[in-house]
Amino acid sequence: MTIHHKMRDDCMPRSVWLDRFQKVRALSEDLARDLHPEDQTVQSMPDASPTKWHLAHVSWFFETFVLVPHCPGYEVAHPQFAYLFNSYYEAAGARHARFARGLITRPTVEEVAAYRARVTDAMGELIASAGEAAFAAIAPLLEIGINHEQQHQELILMDILNLFAANPLHPAYRPCASLPAGTAPELAFFDYPGGIVEIGHAGTGFGYDNEGPRHQVLLRPFRLASRAVTNGEWIAFMEDGGYGRPDLWLSDGWARVKAGEYAAPLYWEKTDAGWEAMTLCGRHPVDPAAPVVHVSYYEADAYARWAGRRLPTEAEWEVAAREMPVSGNFLEAAALKASALRPLPAEPVPGHPAQLYGDVWEWTQSPYVAYPGYRPAAGALGEYNGKFMSSQMVLRGGCCATPDGHARATYRNFFYPHQRWPFAGLRLAEDA
Amino acid sequence: MTIHHKMRDDCMPRSVWLDRFQKVRALSEDLARDLHPEDQTVQSMPDASPTKWHLAHVSWFFETFVLVPHCPGYEVAHPQFAYLFNSYYEAAGARHARFARGLITRPTVEEVAAYRARVTDAMGELIASAGEAAFAAIAPLLEIGINHEQQHQELILMDILNLFAANPLHPAYRPCASLPAGTAPELAFFDYPGGIVEIGHAGTGFGYDNEGPRHQVLLRPFRLASRAVTNGEWIAFMEDGGYGRPDLWLSDGWARVKAGEYAAPLYWEKTDAGWEAMTLCGRHPVDPAAPVVHVSYYEADAYARWAGRRLPTEAEWEVAAREMPVSGNFLEAAALKASALRPLPAEPVPGHPAQLYGDVWEWTQSPYVAYPGYRPAAGALGEYNGKFMSSQMVLRGGCCATPDGHARATYRNFFYPHQRWPFAGLRLAEDA
Amino acid sequence: MTIHHKMRDDCMPRSVWLDRFQKVRALSEDLARDLHPEDQTVQSMPDASPTKWHLAHVSWFFETFVLVPHCPGYEVAHPQFAYLFNSYYEAAGARHARFARGLITRPTVEEVAAYRARVTDAMGELIASAGEAAFAAIAPLLEIGINHEQQHQELILMDILNLFAANPLHPAYRPCASLPAGTAPELAFFDYPGGIVEIGHAGTGFGYDNEGPRHQVLLRPFRLASRAVTNGEWIAFMEDGGYGRPDLWLSDGWARVKAGEYAAPLYWEKTDAGWEAMTLCGRHPVDPAAPVVHVSYYEADAYARWAGRRLPTEAEWEVAAREMPVSGNFLEAAALKASALRPLPAEPVPGHPAQLYGDVWEWTQSPYVAYPGYRPAAGALGEYNGKFMSSQMVLRGGCCATPDGHARATYRNFFYPHQRWPFAGLRLAEDA
Amino acid sequence: MTIHHKMRDDCMPRSVWLDRFQKVRALSEDLARDLHPEDQTVQSMPDASPTKWHLAHVSWFFETFVLVPHCPGYEVAHPQFAYLFNSYYEAAGARHARFARGLITRPTVEEVAAYRARVTDAMGELIASAGEAAFAAIAPLLEIGINHEQQHQELILMDILNLFAANPLHPAYRPCASLPAGTAPELAFFDYPGGIVEIGHAGTGFGYDNEGPRHQVLLRPFRLASRAVTNGEWIAFMEDGGYGRPDLWLSDGWARVKAGEYAAPLYWEKTDAGWEAMTLCGRHPVDPAAPVVHVSYYEADAYARWAGRRLPTEAEWEVAAREMPVSGNFLEAAALKASALRPLPAEPVPGHPAQLYGDVWEWTQSPYVAYPGYRPAAGALGEYNGKFMSSQMVLRGGCCATPDGHARATYRNFFYPHQRWPFAGLRLAEDA
Repeated sequence: MTIHHKMRDDCMPRSVWLDRFQKVRALSEDLARDLHPEDQTVQSMPDASPTKWHLAHVSWFFETFVLVPHCPGYEVAHPQFAYLFNSYYEAAGARHARFARGLITRPTVEEVAAYRARVTDAMGELIASAGEAAFAAIAPLLEIGINHEQQHQELILMDILNLFAANPLHPAYRPCASLPAGTAPELAFFDYPGGIVEIGHAGTGFGYDNEGPRHQVLLRPFRLASRAVTNGEWIAFMEDGGYGRPDLWLSDGWARVKAGEYAAPLYWEKTDAGWEAMTLCGRHPVDPAAPVVHVSYYEADAYARWAGRRLPTEAEWEVAAREMPVSGNFLEAAALKASALRPLPAEPVPGHPAQLYGDVWEWTQSPYVAYPGYRPAAGALGEYNGKFMSSQMVLRGGCCATPDGHARATYRNFFYPHQRWPFAGLRLAEDA
Repeated sequence: MTIHHKMRDDCMPRSVWLDRFQKVRALSEDLARDLHPEDQTVQSMPDASPTKWHLAHVSWFFETFVLVPHCPGYEVAHPQFAYLFNSYYEAAGARHARFARGLITRPTVEEVAAYRARVTDAMGELIASAGEAAFAAIAPLLEIGINHEQQHQELILMDILNLFAANPLHPAYRPCASLPAGTAPELAFFDYPGGIVEIGHAGTGFGYDNEGPRHQVLLRPFRLASRAVTNGEWIAFMEDGGYGRPDLWLSDGWARVKAGEYAAPLYWEKTDAGWEAMTLCGRHPVDPAAPVVHVSYYEADAYARWAGRRLPTEAEWEVAAREMPVSGNFLEAAALKASALRPLPAEPVPGHPAQLYGDVWEWTQSPYVAYPGYRPAAGALGEYNGKFMSSQMVLRGGCCATPDGHARATYRNFFYPHQRWPFAGLRLAEDA
Repeated sequence: MTIHHKMRDDCMPRSVWLDRFQKVRALSEDLARDLHPEDQTVQSMPDASPTKWHLAHVSWFFETFVLVPHCPGYEVAHPQFAYLFNSYYEAAGARHARFARGLITRPTVEEVAAYRARVTDAMGELIASAGEAAFAAIAPLLEIGINHEQQHQELILMDILNLFAANPLHPAYRPCASLPAGTAPELAFFDYPGGIVEIGHAGTGFGYDNEGPRHQVLLRPFRLASRAVTNGEWIAFMEDGGYGRPDLWLSDGWARVKAGEYAAPLYWEKTDAGWEAMTLCGRHPVDPAAPVVHVSYYEADAYARWAGRRLPTEAEWEVAAREMPVSGNFLEAAALKASALRPLPAEPVPGHPAQLYGDVWEWTQSPYVAYPGYRPAAGALGEYNGKFMSSQMVLRGGCCATPDGHARATYRNFFYPHQRWPFAGLRLAEDA
Repeated sequence: MTIHHKMRDDCMPRSVWLDRFQKVRALSEDLARDLHPEDQTVQSMPDASPTKWHLAHVSWFFETFVLVPHCPGYEVAHPQFAYLFNSYYEAAGARHARFARGLITRPTVEEVAAYRARVTDAMGELIASAGEAAFAAIAPLLEIGINHEQQHQELILMDILNLFAANPLHPAYRPCASLPAGTAPELAFFDYPGGIVEIGHAGTGFGYDNEGPRHQVLLRPFRLASRAVTNGEWIAFMEDGGYGRPDLWLSDGWARVKAGEYAAPLYWEKTDAGWEAMTLCGRHPVDPAAPVVHVSYYEADAYARWAGRRLPTEAEWEVAAREMPVSGNFLEAAALKASALRPLPAEPVPGHPAQLYGDVWEWTQSPYVAYPGYRPAAGALGEYNGKFMSSQMVLRGGCCATPDGHARATYRNFFYPHQRWPFAGLRLAEDA
């Protein structure tokens, strides 16, 4: 498996593995704790999945790719779960239709919790007791399983917001963490020299197959904005008729504007008191200082054109971001209650762009394609990333719903250009 | 309101009203008791609704049409419930889109239960304490509210079966009541003389506005089958290529056959062991002696043509049925656990057609149109029946999911000819 | 074939048959004469067909049902024409998809003309030369073929209007016949006594199978309007908010109103100068005295409710109409140029309703179902009428595009309640 | 206009301009000459347009962007033509819906011919008589108009093939030019060294805005196949189960395979005699030596994966192609009858890849995005290319339907990855 060569040098003791594994499992359960069984069962749209499905699917992943092949005598929890909880792994057999995930009221939330406990226990035992050789084979799968579950933690939050936004009662997922009101620092641009640079994952630490191979790219000198575009700036774009000027838009995006699909960021609603937005902590007035979020690539691109700038490429973003520590407004696994669960105004970083990590995923102008020399992993896990390399765009940096520790400078997220339910915003760039 | 003139002479004591009201409310809750919150929240298709929605909607009905206008000082439980739980009453204001009923995870099942209790209590108090004049105005609304809730009790069962049928785990709503295996009595035909007869509701007892006015119709001599068509007979139709012969089908039905929509009754699946069907008590082998159920009008009509007979008109059915006591395999409110919850083989009735009531609704060849002189009720309740009088067909007799006491000889049920999720079967007729 | 027994006593000489046949064939060609090949090829919507297809299809009908079985040695013009020009006869083999009729640019209009000539010639020869016994078998098929071609003549006009209405250039099919401007006679109602009456076709003269058997129906006393509803009256309905009041509408119709489908009769457009309508002679101001046309059943029903009346049943209509001569504003085969090609203001008939025949088909409140005892014809022609007996409504009387001589008192036309491209209007009725 | 700076040094005499202009106009008319009015009017799918529309649209282009602004006193042919024949220029006003182009039977083919003649004459006069300064402004527009009409010449052929392929009669656009049967040269790979290279248009000669700016890219050493993939090779892929192995496919492509959309190249049909394909010269057996054509990007990508190779990037292709003369199997304007109108087996070129130009457009693995520093043209012509830069893939090299002289090494064609009606094939590449 190509993932293997990217693993950190494996002197990590078993107890550390076990702790990481159990913390990730526990965070998933924490995320669901305040949701009622009703909330966890419904699918708000074909792109989204029920919380319960996510919780089961990540367990199926460990069961299918770790326990069944590597734990002699392990018996699957239920013969139909592989059918119900396989997401898209063709090699792992037939599966329930994606759009129908919300019809599966059984197993119940409680039964899924039992399934999780069973898998967590079996995995825990395996981690603790596997022989050296066996564990060497398991470790990379464990690593990907942990990262995979983190991805679904973010999806749980994206999907539950989408569901609650469809409810006229505007339920809040969590009460808002009380945070000091901020102001957005003034927009500035930082210069980068260009030239031949290397990007992509290499060396120690985990990376998905799509982050490699590390390779050279040729960059022209460019400038990158000091922070993400704010809600206040977006309102200026709207008030300037941004959603009404075809010259600003890609043709496919404009077709959606004309069809009435885009008229403001997703979840925004104009009230007598001004713009309000549905968030994980309910519906609130839009904060002009916070980054705009839940915009499509088409909207991000139109905004950049309106602003006389452009979106950065993923290579430009990576070159800038790798100089910075990977910290920001992420989902705080260790102190979940303290997580903002929404993008916050940037805090300036002297001499550098701020907010590259966390808050909002940043649309880049780079289509999601393979790096030169890319080969997907062998086996079912080869379906993890490569087969999605068409018609999607790369986003970078992580967001307020990304678990702390999951993002990195080389991380490539990807969505279709029309999708708006990710926590996606944008940062401007321009040629130097 | 036109319903009023059909009410029974109102010497019924308040305590009887109260008892009827409370029993109906309790039955709804009984029906939901074994369902998990997950089951009660999901909408399996646009035609169906979540259990929770049904439970809330019937309460909204009492709140909107009885409590708000007739209970001074009553305050609605929640200002948004009118939006969420209005089904189709245009006059009662804007409402949540039907197809999106399954997105409403809040209010939760528990909150809906509280809403029900609140409405039940307020209604109970109103019934007990209203002055004579006030109660005279309330009684017809109460009557229709009770009948309305009974209709939704049947829908709860229809809809939950549709939901469970979409789950590969084949969950059972209830364990099967153990009942002696039956055989279908031999098919016979009974003669009716025709002539000018009166049909429709009149006199005492409740009837919906669409059951009147009572009026004359001219019937030709006809014959009516002694029982409903059985699964065994349906299998013979299938084995004779019934789903493959366009000459048997109405054009609109044949288009659905060719589109792959109909190849057997809904919920049937061919296994190595023969035909099995999903039922409220799980998936079981099809009983050849029991009436076929979950067939569309198109299929019923094709079957009748194949059998060299025809479907009865609703007037023919009514003339035959009103000679019989209204008893049969209904949902037993008083002893819910004893309810079969599925159609059962007919028990012969000497000298008469059997099974006219209960087991399966019987498709007639009559389009659902107004009786001569029909006028819908004034006000919002005028939307109850009349506005659906296009493109639907009349079914008669009630079914195994119809609450005992709800059906009668003049009762007109109606569905679109393509719909199959009602407990609908058929009985043959022919010209004498 | 059940049609046979309805044929006029067949002492009609061959020369008369030949003349009728050839005149009908010639009229079809006359109808197409001013259309360019472009116009004759395009299909404006799935419900409509290209002129060229109609011209070929009616020839295929004669070829398939008369020439091939009854003309020894006849060879079909082209082996693929049966596939291309079969409309819906399942028994006559596979066929080209209806919605794709407009893709068939070959055979060209010229080639179709040659096909027509070939069929006309072969039929002419057969009519002239068949032996007595052979002709006895042919005559009923010839009769139905002639009537069938007349139906398609009306469809040609309906469909070409639909096509031209989609063209922003508003092309005229023909220049308007110059006719004196009229005024609509005042609306009056005529009384009919009801009782047991016989309706349906019987005796001499041709009738389709769906017009029989003649049978008794029971009518209540009723009143019928003196003429069709006019454009002026329709405008009053619109100005009174008729398209905005859900209480006037059937539920299925209201759904279409809300979806933006109905806001005025089809082909109407509001201009600064008032309402204009696209007609076969181009776009012109709406004539308030002429009957409203191109309204759906839903609209007709809503109008009647608004007017405090109702639509007549088909039996009521027939009882009134059979007292009147079958004359009116039809398509004048003999003097095509003189045909109005649009509905005209009624000319009063003292003591009787006017305009029962011609001008506009009149929606009745009767669903299109079989008369008691109806049996479709044996063989492929049995598919002519019976298989459409679901979800459609009966219209009566013929219209300005119906060939003269085609309509009669017992004639049952039928369309789906949402369809508006027929020349359909309405006449009011009420209980006496 | 950014196009301007790419124009050839404008010492080209007026007579040469006039000759080029008139030859292009004449070729369009030649292409339509053997099509009947019926053929020229119909739109086979939303992606395609009627021949007549193409012929009018390119004239509208000259009228709108040259004659109206630059020819004082010019009056447009018809006030509605701008509405009917605008393709996608938002800045040029409202326009007829794309999918409804096939409904416009008027203006007729003859009227469109008259429109063309009027525009051709006015343009001819303007070219001949404009003053120097005026012509300097006109020349770049004239150049783009000529190239634009050439693009539509290819579309006419693509679209007419799509239309004829939908006709069960399999009409031929032209008889096949009789050409010697070929064999495909053996597949070989040529090495390219990589490094920093410049790609994109610069200097003299016309290029679209999307071909520039010329810029540096960094290439890794690579190998390029000696010719396009052949039908014979494609059949081997199919026989090896290529359309049944999800591991070969991008996820979006596999979804289309499972939906039954792809099972062989477009227009192929399996007969008892083997694979046949619909072509511009009718339906014929598939030639194993000729390049495969009418495959989607998804199929091309799956094939490359199956073959253990990959598709080239557009930069790789350009670097290889610019060493070669721009000649190949194109649409021969000068000798239309001699044009093959279908891809032909490659003729080997010693020491170089063959067939880079003509025969089939070659899918590259490069998404269609802006080159660094790209700015679309100002004004309405700025909508020519840039706004389509999302979700499409670049194809290179031209095809058998591309007018001779239209293609070049820097030319970037683009289609959505699912589209198959272009003459698109593929060439393999691999890392060196």
